[in-house]
Parts: sequence; C-alpha cells; structure tokens
Amino acid sequence: MTLPRSIRQLIESFEKLPGIGPKTAQRLVFYLLHVPQEQLDEFAEAAQELKRKTVLCSLCFNVAESDPCSVCINQNRDKSIICVVEQPIDVLVLEKAGSFKGVYHVLHGAISPLNNIGPDELYIGQLLQRIKNSVQPIREIILAMNPDMEGEATAMYIAKEIKKIKDLKIIRLGQGLPTGADLEYADEITLARALEGRKEF
Amino acid sequence: MTLPRSIRQLIESFEKLPGIGPKTAQRLVFYLLHVPQEQLDEFAEAAQELKRKTVLCSLCFNVAESDPCSVCINQNRDKSIICVVEQPIDVLVLEKAGSFKGVYHVLHGAISPLNNIGPDELYIGQLLQRIKNSVQPIREIILAMNPDMEGEATAMYIAKEIKKIKDLKIIRLGQGLPTGADLEYADEITLARALEGRKEF
Repeated sequence: MTLPRSIRQLIESFEKLPGIGPKTAQRLVFYLLHVPQEQLDEFAEAAQELKRKTVLCSLCFNVAESDPCSVCINQNRDKSIICVVEQPIDVLVLEKAGSFKGVYHVLHGAISPLNNIGPDELYIGQLLQRIKNSVQPIREIILAMNPDMEGEATAMYIAKEIKKIKDLKIIRLGQGLPTGADLEYADEITLARALEGRKEF
Repeated sequence: MTLPRSIRQLIESFEKLPGIGPKTAQRLVFYLLHVPQEQLDEFAEAAQELKRKTVLCSLCFNVAESDPCSVCINQNRDKSIICVVEQPIDVLVLEKAGSFKGVYHVLHGAISPLNNIGPDELYIGQLLQRIKNSVQPIREIILAMNPDMEGEATAMYIAKEIKKIKDLKIIRLGQGLPTGADLEYADEITLARALEGRKEF
C-alpha cells in the first residue's frame, strides 16, 4: 500500500519543520484528516500569508506588520537604549518579560563561520549606521545574543566595531544560574559565570 | 508590542494540533519566516488538498486516493482475512510491518461512552454488512483495536455482533511485552497478559 499523494505531501511538508520527525509528521497529518475543511483552509491561508503580510522594519529589522514597526514608532519607548538580538522571536520573548522599555535591533542570526555566516550576512552594518547617524543620542547598547559560542563571537565583534565609532555603554545580559535551576546540574561555565556575577544579599 | 496578525494566526493554527503547545507553535512559525515563499505555498497547498484529494474506500473505509482503495483492488491480498483497526494510521503502521497479507476495515474510532461515541458513530454496521453480504468466503476477522479500555470494549462489542451473523474465527492481536521493553518497568496488566500468552521456547 502506498499512501495517497496528498497525505504524503503534507507529511513531507511537516517533516521539514525543526523538531518534527517522520512519526510526528504522520500523526499530525492523520489528525488533520479528521478536521473540518475550513480549519485546513485557515491553516493554509495563514501559512501562505505569513510572509506576504509582514515586512522588516527599516529601523530595527524586526518582523512587523508595518514599517516602522510598532515598537519603533511608540513614543513611550526609550530610543536611547538599543537591545540587539539574534532573532525576531527574541524580541517577542523580551517583550513578554515586559521589563525592557528601550528599542531593538534584530540581526537575523549570529556569526557562524562553520555555516558561512559572516558579519555581512547579518544586519550588523545597519546597526552601526543606525548608531552613527542617530539624531537622538544613544546611551546604551545591550548585546542580548544567545550565551553560546556564536552569540559570544557576535557580541565581541559588534562591541569592537561600535567602539570604533562611538564611546557608548555596551552591556551584555547577566549570565548565571537560571531561576528554578538546580546547582547540582549546572555546568562548569554557568557556575563560573554565576560566581563572576555574584551580588550582595 | 503585539505580534503581526499573520504570525499570530499561524501560531494559533499550529496550537490546535495535538502535542503542539504555544512555545512549539511560536518556534515553528518564527522558523517558517526564514523559509522561501515557495515552501510556504507548497505547505499551504498540501494542507488544503489533504482532504479534497482523498476519499474513503467504500469497502474498507480507509482513506485512499481512489475508491476502492489500492489494498481492496489488489489481487494478491487475501480477501478472506479482514483486519479491523481503529484509524487509517493503524493501516499504515501494519502495512509498514509488512507481514499482513489480508485486507482491512477501518472503524474511524473506538466505542467511548464518555466522548459520546457509540457503535453507530463508527463503521461497525458497514463491517457487519460486509461480512454478511460477502460473496467470497471470509475465514478470519482480526480485531486489531488498541489494547486500551475503549479498544477492548469495541473488540468485545464487534465480536458479539459478528457471532450473531456468522460463525467465524475471531482473533485479537497478541498482547504481552513489547520488544525492547524492560520487565522491571512493565505494568501489572501487561505482565499478566504476557504470562497468559506464554509460549514454549
């Protein structure tokens, strides 16, 4: 028995997504066979319109509905603090945390020589231009890349380049133990960083 | 910040799928933002066509490209053995195992009074008709429902109904320890079934 072509095709489409293997893809597709056609149509339309109805903000390069994006045009956001992140989803996560009131700059990746991603493949040049040409004074740049090798390399590169243009406060997010973690299972680097970042009680 | 509507909609669509929570849905959608539009279009088309390009086989009620399905019209399949399963995906799994050479009957569910699913909501009547009206002799019915409460109840109900019409060999799939399992972690019912189904070495 071979599966009907339309089932095979949707399984293949699901398999291309990160973290979805052949068994999960199968399970999802056979689930969708029981769903009303309208729900399938909605799903299809949402997938098709995903990129068509979004643009990159020409200031911060976040994915947005309009250009400039809702954060960049918001008068209540502090334009003097720019938080640089790797991906649009990082903006979402920081916004959900809710304590950051500045603006963002999305790089759309991190420097990764192994994957042929150098500074020119990212929106780093645009960040430097933004800092250089800014009419409003910029006080602080927060480098909120992921605390992994690519993220660290990207942060180091950007910090070096910014220092060539302006003398700004450049900040990296605090590193240490995540809330709810277990000291016993923390790796050595995290522990070392937690000790470096220790605070008086 | 609110997410662009097209992103929110696709996240909502993914969240409706079984086993996909809000975080996974977010991750998938932000991944899809990096994918070429053609891949999104393919995905959308596959979702839209999934049900439109499939039919239920009027003999076995499996999801198929044509009616009757490729198993039911295959001359090499033994029409005298019918394997009754709950879902189309079960047919796929049994076909992949590759040792069954008979035909199938898909119930599209199991009897579950808690979810208001009685025998009339399933293709049980059609199975009984099929057995009753069959021109070719039927020797054996394999009840391959899931080994859970609903599956057992469904198997018992069907076995009882079949016996009212014809005196057939009615078989249930072997129960016991799954290959690769650990005796230590097996539950009591599985162990009891494994002992019942013991074989000489």
